[in-house]
Formats: sequence, C-alpha cells, structure tokens
Amino acid sequence: MIYLDNNATTRPLPAVVAAVAEALNVHWANPSSKHPAGQEARRLLTEARAEVARLLGAQPAEVVFTASATEANAMALHAALAVPDAPRRLVLSAIEHAGLQQVAKALAGEGVEVLILPVDTHGVIVTAALPALLADGAAVVSVMAANNETGVIQPVAEVVRLARAAGVPVHVDATQMAGRLPVDCAALGARFVSVSAHKLHGPKGIGALVVKKGAPFAPLLPGQQERKRRGGTENFPGIAGFAAAARHALASLSGAEGLHIAALRDALEAGLAAALPDVRVFGAGVPRLPNTTCMAFGALDAEVVLQRLARAGICASSGSACSAGGTAASHVLLAMGVEEAAARGAVRFSLSADTTPGDIATVIQILQAALAPLLAEVLTA
Amino acid sequence: MIYLDNNATTRPLPAVVAAVAEALNVHWANPSSKHPAGQEARRLLTEARAEVARLLGAQPAEVVFTASATEANAMALHAALAVPDAPRRLVLSAIEHAGLQQVAKALAGEGVEVLILPVDTHGVIVTAALPALLADGAAVVSVMAANNETGVIQPVAEVVRLARAAGVPVHVDATQMAGRLPVDCAALGARFVSVSAHKLHGPKGIGALVVKKGAPFAPLLPGQQERKRRGGTENFPGIAGFAAAARHALASLSGAEGLHIAALRDALEAGLAAALPDVRVFGAGVPRLPNTTCMAFGALDAEVVLQRLARAGICASSGSACSAGGTAASHVLLAMGVEEAAARGAVRFSLSADTTPGDIATVIQILQAALAPLLAEVLTA
Repeated sequence: MIYLDNNATTRPLPAVVAAVAEALNVHWANPSSKHPAGQEARRLLTEARAEVARLLGAQPAEVVFTASATEANAMALHAALAVPDAPRRLVLSAIEHAGLQQVAKALAGEGVEVLILPVDTHGVIVTAALPALLADGAAVVSVMAANNETGVIQPVAEVVRLARAAGVPVHVDATQMAGRLPVDCAALGARFVSVSAHKLHGPKGIGALVVKKGAPFAPLLPGQQERKRRGGTENFPGIAGFAAAARHALASLSGAEGLHIAALRDALEAGLAAALPDVRVFGAGVPRLPNTTCMAFGALDAEVVLQRLARAGICASSGSACSAGGTAASHVLLAMGVEEAAARGAVRFSLSADTTPGDIATVIQILQAALAPLLAEVLTA
Repeated sequence: MIYLDNNATTRPLPAVVAAVAEALNVHWANPSSKHPAGQEARRLLTEARAEVARLLGAQPAEVVFTASATEANAMALHAALAVPDAPRRLVLSAIEHAGLQQVAKALAGEGVEVLILPVDTHGVIVTAALPALLADGAAVVSVMAANNETGVIQPVAEVVRLARAAGVPVHVDATQMAGRLPVDCAALGARFVSVSAHKLHGPKGIGALVVKKGAPFAPLLPGQQERKRRGGTENFPGIAGFAAAARHALASLSGAEGLHIAALRDALEAGLAAALPDVRVFGAGVPRLPNTTCMAFGALDAEVVLQRLARAGICASSGSACSAGGTAASHVLLAMGVEEAAARGAVRFSLSADTTPGDIATVIQILQAALAPLLAEVLTA
C-alpha cells in the first residue's frame, strides 16, 4: 500500500503504540485516585502534558485534553459565547472544517449570528475583510492555521492582530499544522488553539484545546478533570501516545524531514504535470503545508482518479475524509471560486515522513498510464 | 499492590491491550476514508459496534461511541432538551454522578428547572416521589442503574414505567452496572443509556450512549461520524478495545464470576465486622452490585483508613475518584440521610475478577491491626 492520505489520518509511530500499551498494561489507575497507583498515573499525565505543551509553545496548564480536534473546536466556540456579555456573533472563515461549520450552524439555530470571512482564489483568508466583519464586535473569530484540503497556510498572525484591535478573541484550528510546521501558541496570541494527535502519528481519540492563561472559560463537558475545564476520566493511554508523537514531531521539525517531504510533494506535482495534460494544482501560488497537494486532472471526476489509484493500492482522497461520504463539491474549493465541475475533480495527496521517492514515482507512473487515455478521449471528444 | 478501586477504573485485559495495539499498528486508516484501507477500518468498526451492542442488549445502530460516560451523560441531557417543545425541566436522582450533576447545574444557569428525585436511607431511589415531580412534564428523567459509591441497584424499570406513564423519556447511567450485571437496553425501554469501557476492563477514553431507535436526537458534538450523532474521527483503537472488553464481559456474566466476586465482597464485610467494632456498611440491606462495599469504621475519617491501606499497598477510595480531590462528604451518603461525620468516614472497596481470597484476608488483617487501636482509643476517649 502507498498511503498518501495523511491529512485524513497518519500511521501511529512504534513509539506511540508502545506508550499506549504501557499506559494500558502498567499505568492504568485513575489519575484522579488518591492512592499511590493513581498518583503515579497523575505524575505521568503531568509529564505527558508538558511534552504536548512543548510542541505547541504553550504552558502545560494551558493544555486541555479532548477526544478530538472536533471537540476542541466545539469547546472553543462554546467557551467564547459563554463569556458574560459576549456578542452573540461568530466570525469564521469560509474554509473551516465541516465539524466546526456544523457547530456554527447549530449555534445559528439558537440565534447566534454567523459571519463568513472570505478567501481569495488561492484559498487564503482575505484579512482585509475582517475589520468590517468585526465592526459590531464578535464572541470569537475562528480560522484554520492551514487548510486540510489544499494545505494553504493562513495569515493567522494578521488575523490575531486585527481581531485584537477590535477586542475580539481568536480561535485557531491548527489540526493540520501541528507536527508539520512549528506552532508557537505564546507568540501567536490566540485565545484558543485546537490540535489532534492522530494527524501527527499519534493515536485517534485524543486532541487538545490550548486555552490562553487567564482567559475566561466555560466547559462544554463539565467535570472535575482538566482543572474543571473538561470532565471525564483522563484518557491517559491516549495522552501518553499523544506525548510520544509530540516528542517525535518536535525533534523532526528542527530537522530536514519537512524539506524532504516538500521535495517529494513538489516532485509529485512536477512529475504529473509533465506526464499528463491539463493538471491543475489548487493553491499552488501561495505557501502551503509541505506535505499537501490538491489537484484536478482535466475534467475527470475525482472518483475516476481515486478508483484507478485504489486498484494500484494507492490511498488518496477527494476533499476531506470527513465529508467523503457525500458527492458534494468541496466547500473549500467553491469558496476559492473554483467552478463546481473542477471542484468535483479535486484529488488530494497528503504525504508523510513515511513517503518514499519510489512511492512518488509509482503514483506518477500509475496515473500516467491510467489517465492519459481518458484525458486524450476527453480532449478529442 | 492489592487493587480494590475497580469502580474508579479497572485493569485493561490483555485481550483489550492486544486489540488496541492491533488497531494502532495495522488498522489505523480513517474509517471515513473511501479507499480500501479506510473501508477495512470501517468494516472492523462495524463488527466492534455489534460486540458492544450485544453486551448492552441494543441494536448496533443505537450505539453512539463517545469519549466517556461523562460525555454520554451530557449528550443525553442535551439531546432531551433539544427536542422541539420539550419542557425546560429535568428530573434527576440525588445520587447521580458529579459530572452529570454539573451539566444539570450549568443548564439550570440557562433557565432549565432541575428537580431532584430523593433516595431512601438505603440509597434507593424513591420511585413513589416520581409522579408528582413529573406532573408538569419534563424533558428527561436521569437515574443511575447502580450507584458508584454504594453499589446500590436502582429500580430503573419502575422509573421507566412511571416516566412512560407521564410521557417523559428516561436516561439511565449504567456506567457501573455494565459488565457487572446484565444490561438489556431493549427490555429496559429507556431512551438513553450511558456506559464506559474503562469500568469493565476496557481502555480509558471510550464510552457509549445507546440511543433508542427512532428517538429524536441533536448532537452535542456535530459532525458526519456516528450517523451524524457525534462528530470527530472515530477512535477505532479505543472502540476495538471496548469490543474486546465487552466480549469478555458478556462471557463472564453468564458464568460464575459475579458470584465469586460477591462472595469475596461478603467475606470482606463479614471479616471486618468480626475483626473491628462499629463497622457500618452503607446500603447493606438492599440489592447491590456484587463487587462494591462502602463502609465506615466508627468515627474514623476516611483519610486515616486510606493512608493505612496505602502504606500496605492496598488501593481503595473515599467516595468517587472524580471528587477525590475534595474533602467534602459524599453527596450520595448525605442524600441517604447519613450524618456528615459518618459520611466523611466512608471508604469504598470495589472488587473485580482479579481479586483473590488472599487479597481479602490481607485487607482484613491490615485493617484489624491498624484500626483496632485507633477505634479503642476513640471508644475510651
């Protein structure tokens, strides 16, 4: 199998599996228990929290563990709206994750006004539009650090600067950024930052919301745990796995791994452009995550391309996995002004440190053989 | 270590650890991905859901996986209140888990009326009080199947019967019951049933809410997953571990394991009563979970008893682990009419299939040696 769907999820590292198994086999006491076994689990949980905080440039006490980035995103919007006298208004970009958009939609049903921050044709948030959207205040501005479909990196520092000028806190969904490019919560200055372990070779079922020290907070899931910010027995096996993944990611970020991945991604794009007519890369002209490319092949539907890839044992994706059940065109590409037919053709390849030059060569070869006849047919039809 | 704190959490079974590790090592694709690796994860997730459903006497489609029973509890109250024209009123018993009580408190802050169903001196819900509480309708009645502190089994079938007569749905928190005594959601007829894997030798970080087929539902965490009832990438490692634990629990329930555990629990109570003066067992006169006993030793504070136990490597608890950080007397015992001083003395021993006759003998011996002088001192003081 050649796995190029790392924005959907990643392979857990052996060190992650070992950390989870050790937590299950040895340190399985409840970290809230006062007996020595519980207190040992508590001590290890504290260490793991520090590891995750280190990756994110946050203080350990700012890290609230969740089950997922989806939960972290929902918590952030909920907490922002729960601040006394907060305006009943949210601003989110047009390219936010489906889960966050659905939270916003549910809130809209409860009378919260939801304003949309547009993106340009490259898929970059139009920060110039923000001051007008914030003119009457808002509970929070929610933006992605990097888009899951295109990999396009967003001007979050500028969003924070403009929002701060308007007195509005910011939530940054850094799910696709964390572990791939440096995330520095302290420097960023956002009130909330969401991440997920399984996008950076950690386990599924564990994520975090970084909550700025001193920020007001109301929990979505009440309870004693996580300094009363998120109830439920702590998922220490998941947290231990997250910490192992964070430790590895932090070491990788200071090394050549990212450059290696970007070189392979660029080789994939160049190889396909040379091998096939009419290859279009979305967001190609702006900074992107090193591992992501989103492209269309002439007028071919993504399903056709993905079937050919699947037959050859190659995993890729159309749009995000979370909406893969549907046949709707990507809301991200539509927001960029891509025509609906072209948006339906978008195929995402997302690489990881596991990806090899051989993988890339195979994908180019398979797609050239499979798609060239189809594209020629279309061109001569 | 002698671990008698199984109502706080349980040791994951070797088969559970193996299932989690296999999910992490092999079946780590995103179950929402359409490629073959994702679809294989989806197939295994479907199988695991059926295993969990089987333990609970539910249909697989009724099982919504969550991160915890705490989340499941919050989801149930949220969904009940989200039903159009549902009365803005909740009824919950006086002995519900702290997490659920805090959700109710937060809802009360939003104008929801919260009515409390009392318990008698044995810790059993007074079902006769229910019709009056439901006279003006309610969004939901929420009751535990068995209490986490005393182990006292609650008359949930009668609660469902009375609530149905009043046209009010029921949520049952079966967290401490599942895996210890049979749970049959189909026969019970409650709209919602909450469970957690880590109370039945499964992993932490995974629970479920059983939602009656056809019941109206609004998600707490919106998203595409779990038939749009709970968003976030499925925690397949956790779900696989839950399924392995459920399979084992179902096999155990039809065997002699429960009788074995009850016999050890009874031996612990009898042994301590014979060894020490003034031992009081809360809820002793009514049906309880086979594994749980909650007792006070004269006027000794629970902390004193737990310290002596901890020095001998014995893990037990005062009240529930979730509120172990505080020094407040158990709200469960106070609701039973236990005097505050006695409630502060309550120590919970909760056994499992791992508990041996030798463990019980050791606990009796240690407590006799450690407490007899203290109790004599108090009596002669």
